[in-house]
Amino acid sequence: MKELAIGIDIGGQSAKLGVVDRDGCILDSCVVTSMQPTFDAFISDLADAIKSLCDSTASAGRVTGTGADAPNANYHTGCVEFAPNLKWGRDGEGRPTVIPLAESLAKATGLKVSLTNDANAAAWGEHTYGAARGIDNFIMITLGTGVGSGIVIDGKLVYGHDGFAGELGHVCVERGGRQCNCGLKGCLETYASATGVARTARLWIQENSRPSLLRRLDAEAITSKDIFEAALAGDSLAKDIFAYTGRKLGQAMADFVKFSAPQAIVLFGGLGGSRQFFHDEMVREMNENLMEIWKGKIQILYSTLKQSDAAILGAASLVWQK
Amino acid sequence: MKELAIGIDIGGQSAKLGVVDRDGCILDSCVVTSMQPTFDAFISDLADAIKSLCDSTASAGRVTGTGADAPNANYHTGCVEFAPNLKWGRDGEGRPTVIPLAESLAKATGLKVSLTNDANAAAWGEHTYGAARGIDNFIMITLGTGVGSGIVIDGKLVYGHDGFAGELGHVCVERGGRQCNCGLKGCLETYASATGVARTARLWIQENSRPSLLRRLDAEAITSKDIFEAALAGDSLAKDIFAYTGRKLGQAMADFVKFSAPQAIVLFGGLGGSRQFFHDEMVREMNENLMEIWKGKIQILYSTLKQSDAAILGAASLVWQK
Repeated sequence: MKELAIGIDIGGQSAKLGVVDRDGCILDSCVVTSMQPTFDAFISDLADAIKSLCDSTASAGRVTGTGADAPNANYHTGCVEFAPNLKWGRDGEGRPTVIPLAESLAKATGLKVSLTNDANAAAWGEHTYGAARGIDNFIMITLGTGVGSGIVIDGKLVYGHDGFAGELGHVCVERGGRQCNCGLKGCLETYASATGVARTARLWIQENSRPSLLRRLDAEAITSKDIFEAALAGDSLAKDIFAYTGRKLGQAMADFVKFSAPQAIVLFGGLGGSRQFFHDEMVREMNENLMEIWKGKIQILYSTLKQSDAAILGAASLVWQK
Repeated sequence: MKELAIGIDIGGQSAKLGVVDRDGCILDSCVVTSMQPTFDAFISDLADAIKSLCDSTASAGRVTGTGADAPNANYHTGCVEFAPNLKWGRDGEGRPTVIPLAESLAKATGLKVSLTNDANAAAWGEHTYGAARGIDNFIMITLGTGVGSGIVIDGKLVYGHDGFAGELGHVCVERGGRQCNCGLKGCLETYASATGVARTARLWIQENSRPSLLRRLDAEAITSKDIFEAALAGDSLAKDIFAYTGRKLGQAMADFVKFSAPQAIVLFGGLGGSRQFFHDEMVREMNENLMEIWKGKIQILYSTLKQSDAAILGAASLVWQK
């Protein structure tokens, strides 16, 4: 009987679930809202969805476990801890609190549940099914609305003492720089995420008078997609914004290498689609900031998983962690 | 029969050897020059010294292995790779080259040999015998002539893909900052090592006219010890130099925490003796640069090993790695 795993990607709006086999085929999937007012209602919906998925794929194999990712999830405790954007993740007075997600879901389904954050799940998904297969030392950087990271050393995800290792989006790349949502200033995320790129555009449009297609747009509403399209159309300011982003990312990546000496850095997420405009600057800047022993030796890879499948595959892959 | 280990700390001038038991007692020790012109002569001297040590401690136990640390040592390959300061570490034309130290020493002694750099050995020594006993996730930072580091995650030293992980002394703390020996600019080592502290003193004495005991000294010859003594005597410039050093170190430490979420950071090395003048600033700055989840939660420890024994203990402890 084939071994199957359930993968659940929990976000503020919805939870995407799928049944995945060892080869990374998604046999069936569904979506459940995660806007329920109570945690019990959410768990009950999830358990029902899992039961349906197990039933619909019963002829293909047996589900042996569940992997889930959620914001602010702690692998060690199996809890979601103080997540600001989860409706059911709150105490009686509406404040974000600690929610025992893995334990509750295991009780409701009878399945073993592994829980971590989305960047760790993405890293393990890439190691199990994607660009990092066979690579036991790498750093995954997710370039989305924010910047996340998952670190794999000697074939194992790094969780750290408290379960929160790998917050590389909040490494300082500019002392006293841009204000970040986390409370700190100058975090990599404020420069190298989709929102960071848009922020660069708004600042540069205000600060100088270079002509740009971007000036036709409402500055406050500019997105990284607008900047990508302007760059595609040959707009030099838009191109420079991506080059600047690449340099910031490359500088940070050089320092990450000095920590764990990875074989590769794997990039994932929406911004990666604009790589043609930042890749070269990023790699050049990384190598310029590396000692001789590493110059030109760190592989830069991009996720090979289909964007729409990656979240479920990453979550499911947690079941097969060593 | 008690298990014993040989520890060898290899520097540019000499190699210190000792026989160590599981409790961290050094039963016997000796010193061999490491200025021999050829590698074969050095290995032959080391093998003779090891034989003597084994003989002199034969009644106490049986030596089961050798741990050694050396500059530019690679754990994975057991080689010293391109070390600029080792006389015998050169090719026919006098250029630093790759020397198979572990293999050669194993052949000459019949003992298994583990080799790594001094900061990794210091970290493992601290885990086995010192301040980090029972702590499975920590970062060791050695504050000596340079700044080294050893990273322990889940009870294992991190060597990385190529054996060179943990070069945190070369993380950039000031973009375009001070020139480092490694070729990069703004490395932590150029601020937070003994030589970095002396460099700060020289710069500050030139840049401003604040009165200071340090002005009585030859600026080019100022050492971190001079600055420590001035600070002890109440000199405010000297105190500010250490406070500045503490802030640089604290900022860097905050970013290290975001990588591996350690339980503790352990400090070791000569500069640690001046901790009364930098500890508070370092801890404050680290916490100011950490997200809420970590503020006030990272333990700062100082090595508890006797400075004169630490190198041998660290090297010997490698024998007992998992």
